[in-house]
Amino acid sequence: MKKINVGGLALVALLLAQGVRAQNKIVVFQSDFGLKDGAVSAMKGVANGVSTDLKLYDLTHEIPAYNIWEAAFRLEQTVPYWPEGTVFVSVVDPGVGTSRKSVVLKTRKGHFIVTPDNGTLTLVAASEGVSELREINEAVNRRKGSGKSYTFHGRDVYAYTAARLASGTITFEQVGPVLPASVVTLPFQKAVREGQVLKGNIPILDIQYGNVWTNIDAALLEELRPKYGDMMEVTFYHHQEAVTTLQAPYSETFGAVPEGKPLAYLNSLMQLSFAVNMGNLAEAQHIGSGSDWSVAVKLLPKRN
Amino acid sequence: MKKINVGGLALVALLLAQGVRAQNKIVVFQSDFGLKDGAVSAMKGVANGVSTDLKLYDLTHEIPAYNIWEAAFRLEQTVPYWPEGTVFVSVVDPGVGTSRKSVVLKTRKGHFIVTPDNGTLTLVAASEGVSELREINEAVNRRKGSGKSYTFHGRDVYAYTAARLASGTITFEQVGPVLPASVVTLPFQKAVREGQVLKGNIPILDIQYGNVWTNIDAALLEELRPKYGDMMEVTFYHHQEAVTTLQAPYSETFGAVPEGKPLAYLNSLMQLSFAVNMGNLAEAQHIGSGSDWSVAVKLLPKRN
Amino acid sequence: MKKINVGGLALVALLLAQGVRAQNKIVVFQSDFGLKDGAVSAMKGVANGVSTDLKLYDLTHEIPAYNIWEAAFRLEQTVPYWPEGTVFVSVVDPGVGTSRKSVVLKTRKGHFIVTPDNGTLTLVAASEGVSELREINEAVNRRKGSGKSYTFHGRDVYAYTAARLASGTITFEQVGPVLPASVVTLPFQKAVREGQVLKGNIPILDIQYGNVWTNIDAALLEELRPKYGDMMEVTFYHHQEAVTTLQAPYSETFGAVPEGKPLAYLNSLMQLSFAVNMGNLAEAQHIGSGSDWSVAVKLLPKRN
Repeated sequence: MKKINVGGLALVALLLAQGVRAQNKIVVFQSDFGLKDGAVSAMKGVANGVSTDLKLYDLTHEIPAYNIWEAAFRLEQTVPYWPEGTVFVSVVDPGVGTSRKSVVLKTRKGHFIVTPDNGTLTLVAASEGVSELREINEAVNRRKGSGKSYTFHGRDVYAYTAARLASGTITFEQVGPVLPASVVTLPFQKAVREGQVLKGNIPILDIQYGNVWTNIDAALLEELRPKYGDMMEVTFYHHQEAVTTLQAPYSETFGAVPEGKPLAYLNSLMQLSFAVNMGNLAEAQHIGSGSDWSVAVKLLPKRN
Repeated sequence: MKKINVGGLALVALLLAQGVRAQNKIVVFQSDFGLKDGAVSAMKGVANGVSTDLKLYDLTHEIPAYNIWEAAFRLEQTVPYWPEGTVFVSVVDPGVGTSRKSVVLKTRKGHFIVTPDNGTLTLVAASEGVSELREINEAVNRRKGSGKSYTFHGRDVYAYTAARLASGTITFEQVGPVLPASVVTLPFQKAVREGQVLKGNIPILDIQYGNVWTNIDAALLEELRPKYGDMMEVTFYHHQEAVTTLQAPYSETFGAVPEGKPLAYLNSLMQLSFAVNMGNLAEAQHIGSGSDWSVAVKLLPKRN
Repeated sequence: MKKINVGGLALVALLLAQGVRAQNKIVVFQSDFGLKDGAVSAMKGVANGVSTDLKLYDLTHEIPAYNIWEAAFRLEQTVPYWPEGTVFVSVVDPGVGTSRKSVVLKTRKGHFIVTPDNGTLTLVAASEGVSELREINEAVNRRKGSGKSYTFHGRDVYAYTAARLASGTITFEQVGPVLPASVVTLPFQKAVREGQVLKGNIPILDIQYGNVWTNIDAALLEELRPKYGDMMEVTFYHHQEAVTTLQAPYSETFGAVPEGKPLAYLNSLMQLSFAVNMGNLAEAQHIGSGSDWSVAVKLLPKRN
């Protein structure tokens, strides 16, 4: 009897442990569809057809058309702020109908990402880690009656599979067969320190305000031992060619510099960023983002 | 006893059958309000005032101002992907305050559409069928305290009535009196085959990508017996005048043609469409959509 | 016994009275973040991390960057249409990191607004009234692990606190200490009658259609005793300088004037407004909105 009881407790403990990472009925959608037509709504309709108990949210649908890099970045930026067990759908899919695989990634913390494996997982796989990668078995995980349609996988495969997974209609194992735990990746400059110079990538612009973000995180920046008020010099590169150079104080807040003046700061992801207070740095200096944009940053000597 | 049991089963069966078409607490909103002001949010606030158990979603709010045709198309495109019992609200209403009727259409499958009867129902009535049309009785189905406001029917009548219907506060019968089952319709060129030429309308552009959709469905296209790789010639017309002519292979996927090249394909609605792989066909060739745009399509003879 | 019963009833009555104003698990978000990146989604993820029972909606995220006036107007326009107990989050925060306070306003009817106290509450405090104002105690009402980030209060403080309040995780009292019941306000011209002339502010444009709204409400307008069809003359001012003058009939509906013709009407907020039927008045006449725009309106004498 005792043994059975212990076994029961162990089972409960196991279920609880799994429960932390189980699906939580939340699906978050990302795409390059925009909001002007019915595509996003059709995906949510299909998800509601699987279960009306789901809670459906959006990451963004304004990813520039076919921009896999930006889809990758938005996922990395947003996934960690959602509860474990949340299922993400990302559909930026220029290769629809070609040989790219349709997959579900489970991260180490227990988030799920349903997407074509075309580079979209580049950043989230690196930062959140891959617990397991499975290929969607479309023989079962495809909306009934959609067999003749070859162009809207977002609705018929990705939204449908995500809804089945999030609602508990299927387990993660029932998504389809396990794949090797490595995803298709896009190349980009990693953040490094070379002597007293930090090099890194411009993964994205904070487009609403024209702020320029880098992938240089607080820990790497700390190796230069900057204090608030110290002047930094940053050069922005496109395809290794210098576009512009800027001097700006490392600041705790935007309000630390006058309106119209540049500053360096840690953004909400705790990564080194550059901005103009109440202005638009990227537009004024023609700075872009993506795998072919980079920066070099150093501290200027203090004046006496 | 046996008879009573059978009656009980029959009643259960009847309730289940009705249940399939009953309201499901989901409301999907469409309008030309945009997302920059509080109009959409006020509609959802009023709906939550009726019941906080509702699940409120959007089709789109980016219908071009006063464009009834596009509202009609978005409904037809999206309604079938939502579960039966879903209540749609469509507010594109240039004639607000004039004599157009405020109605609720119940389709054959059991979707509900709450809208001014101004042409918005043209396409969905034809494709989904009219089970019953009722006029909203504003004496009861109008938000309390809104009597003096003549300009925001979307909030005070349509969202309010939709929320009452979706939540089960009222039955479909309590919406108001039955109308004849015919809706106000907009004229447009139907899809037809004339010999070896298919003619049809351009109901809409897939605006995010600039793809050109037609109302020629897979079954009609099949009458030409096209195979993947066969060349098609399509001429686009505005007010019966030719705008441009294009030759493009009938393709299973966008990836079947090189970047920058045109293709013909079946879109997610299984209708003949035209695009440029990784490009914007509509913008490049100045092709629009609506009731005054049409196409003529034929297969080119195969080269030997 | 009787006394105890009465006390019990009184307690129930008290709880019911409070219940009307208690939190209702609904959070409505407003910001100037736009929908192109993951910022709004991260806020909603954090809210779901507090409780997945919340219902999360949007007011708008298209407030022009740093435009506190417009944020103030959208709140005033929308708050009354949501059920009492709804929690609003408004993040338009050019002074992030400076000394502006983070507060929660409880209105007289029992809506809650979580926001930096930087003028955003100007209009809603005046129209809905201040029941109580509390400062957010960030020692407890701040997302765990967000201590080093100084720039995304919207996610780490405002969304987090709103979710805790809406879900009942904390009471309104647990938000933080009470402040004096007066908020930071922006200056603007109040609606007044001077003889037979009405003066007022242009708080906002109905931007989707180019209609011009004023803060002159139906009651004040009534002092001129206008009838439908009476001609009005309105002059629009920017920084007290006349921009343009217009004559337009006071109309019950847009359809009361021909296409392309101006009209005066009561908008959905029951405030005097001006428009061109099927046209864009603001664009055509270069009329803007904000605290520095105003109008003067009079009735023209009737022709005999």
